[in-house]
Amino acid sequence: MKHFVVGVDVGGTNVKLGLVNTSGKVLSRSSFATQGFIQTPEVLIDAICEAVLALLAKEGCQKSDVEGVGIGLPGLVDVNAGVVRILPNIPGWADVHLKRIMEKKLGLKVRLENDVNMITLGEWEYGAGKGLEDLICMTLGTGVGAGLVLNNRIYRGPGFAAGEIGHAPLSRHGQKCGCGGWGCYERLVGNKRLQKDAARLFAKPDITLEDVYRRAIASKKKAVKFWEEVGERVALGLIGPINILNPECVIVGGGVARSFELMKPSIERTIKKRCMKTQSEMVRLVKARLDDDAGIIGAEVLIRHENK
Amino acid sequence: MKHFVVGVDVGGTNVKLGLVNTSGKVLSRSSFATQGFIQTPEVLIDAICEAVLALLAKEGCQKSDVEGVGIGLPGLVDVNAGVVRILPNIPGWADVHLKRIMEKKLGLKVRLENDVNMITLGEWEYGAGKGLEDLICMTLGTGVGAGLVLNNRIYRGPGFAAGEIGHAPLSRHGQKCGCGGWGCYERLVGNKRLQKDAARLFAKPDITLEDVYRRAIASKKKAVKFWEEVGERVALGLIGPINILNPECVIVGGGVARSFELMKPSIERTIKKRCMKTQSEMVRLVKARLDDDAGIIGAEVLIRHENK
Repeated sequence: MKHFVVGVDVGGTNVKLGLVNTSGKVLSRSSFATQGFIQTPEVLIDAICEAVLALLAKEGCQKSDVEGVGIGLPGLVDVNAGVVRILPNIPGWADVHLKRIMEKKLGLKVRLENDVNMITLGEWEYGAGKGLEDLICMTLGTGVGAGLVLNNRIYRGPGFAAGEIGHAPLSRHGQKCGCGGWGCYERLVGNKRLQKDAARLFAKPDITLEDVYRRAIASKKKAVKFWEEVGERVALGLIGPINILNPECVIVGGGVARSFELMKPSIERTIKKRCMKTQSEMVRLVKARLDDDAGIIGAEVLIRHENK
Repeated sequence: MKHFVVGVDVGGTNVKLGLVNTSGKVLSRSSFATQGFIQTPEVLIDAICEAVLALLAKEGCQKSDVEGVGIGLPGLVDVNAGVVRILPNIPGWADVHLKRIMEKKLGLKVRLENDVNMITLGEWEYGAGKGLEDLICMTLGTGVGAGLVLNNRIYRGPGFAAGEIGHAPLSRHGQKCGCGGWGCYERLVGNKRLQKDAARLFAKPDITLEDVYRRAIASKKKAVKFWEEVGERVALGLIGPINILNPECVIVGGGVARSFELMKPSIERTIKKRCMKTQSEMVRLVKARLDDDAGIIGAEVLIRHENK
C-alpha cells in the first residue's frame, strides 16, 4: 500500500513541500527560497528533487510508500502532457517537460498542476468546499485568479487557462492591465491597487494592508470602512461569474482573505443586490480553510483523482 | 428500435414542434401561437400534447417508434426533477411538474430543458460546435443568454441557472436591469437598446434592426458602421467569459446573429486586443448553424445523452 503523496508548491518567493497522507493531513514540511535557484529551470528542478528526497529521508519514507509527487506551479501548465508552458514570474520556463524530467530523476510518479487549481483541489476535497460539486475558489492577492469545480470536476479549459476571473473587464475603458487588456477586475482589487488606496486614505505612503487589517480589527472607523468598500469592489467582479456559473459557493483565499470577515457583509450585500435571484439565493461566501497548506494538500487530491 | 424524438420548443410567441430522427434531421414540423393557450398551464400543456400526437399521426408514427419527447422552455427548469420552476414571460407557471403530467397524458418519456440549453445541445452535436468539448453558445436577441458545454458536458449549474452571460455588469454603476442588477451586458447589446441606438442614429424612431441589416448589406456606410460598433460591444461582454472559461469556440445565435458577418471583424479585433493570450489564440467565433431548428434538434441530443 502506498500511503503518501509529496506536495510541492512552487511560488515566486518560496518553494514549499509537504508529505501528505491519504487523509489529506500534512505530516511534515520543508521549504526553500526560490530566488537562489532561478538561474535556469534545471537548477530549480534539481533543487526541488533534492528537497523531495530530503523530505522522504527525514521522515524515513521509502519511495515504495509514495503514490506520487504533485507539483503546483504559478503559470500555464499542460496537465495532460506534463509540460510547463510558461511561468510569468520565473524566467526561462518555456515548454519545460517537467513531469518527464522529474520522473526520471526521482523514480516516482509526478503530476503537474497550476497553483490556483491545486489550491482549489485542496479546498474542494478537504477544506471549505468539501462535498460540493460546483464552486469558485478565488485567490485575492497581487493577482486575482480562481479555480473552478464544475459538474464535480476541476475545470481547466482546453488550453489549461480557465479561471481568470481577475481579467474580466468591469468598464468599457479603464486602466491598462498586465494581461494586455484594460479595465480588468484585478486592477480594482489586486494588492497593488488596495495598497495605493490605503496609502491615500491614511496619508501614509508606506502603510501595508496588514496595518489596515490591524486597525480595522481594533475597530478604527476609517479602516473598517476601507475593508467595507473593498468588499463592495470584490463583489463587483463576482457578480458576472456567479450569474454565469451559478456556483454553490465562492471560496475566498489569498493574502487579502485575512480580512475576509471585515469584507464579508459588504460582499454579501452587494451580491444579494446585484446577482440574479436563483444565483444569489444559492451561493454561499466562505473563507478558504487550508491557508498555506492548500496547495500541498491539493497534490494528494490530484494524484488520487487520477487513480480513480 | 425507436427511431424518433419529438422536439418541442416553447416560446413566448410560438410553440414549435418537430419530429427528429436519430441523425438529428427534422423530418416534419408543426407550430401554433402560444398566446391562444396561456390562460393556465393546463391549457398550454393540453395544446402541446395534442400537437405532439397530431404530428405523430400526420407522419404515421407509432408511439413505440418514439424514444421520447424533449421540451425546451423559456425559463428556469429543474431538469432532474422534471419541474418548470418559472417562466418569466408566460404567466402562471410556477413549480409545474410538466414531465410527470405530460408522461401521463402521452404515455411517452418526456424530458425538460431550458430553451437556451436545448439550442446549445443542438449546436454542439449537430451544428457549429460539432466535436468540441468546451464552448459558449450565446443567444443575442431581446435577452442575452448562453448555454455552456464544459468538460464535454452541458453545464447547468446546481440551480439550473448557469449561462447568464447577459447579466455580468460591465460598469460599476450603469442602467438598471430587469434581472434586478444594473450595468448588465444585456443593457448594452439587447435588442431594445440596439433598436433605440439605431433610431437615434438614423433619426427614424420606427426603424427596425432588420432595416439596418439590409442597409448594411447594401453597403450603406452608416449602417455598416452601426454593426461594427455593435460588434465591439458584443465583444466587451465576451472578454470575461472567454478569460474565465477558455472555450474553444463562441457560437453566436439569436435574432441579432443575422448580422453576424457584419459584426465578426470588430468582435474578433476586440477579443484579440483585450482577451488573454492563450484564450484569444484558442477561441473561434462562429455563427450558429441550425437557426430555428436548434431547439428542436437539441431535444434529440437531450433524450439520447440520457440513454448513454
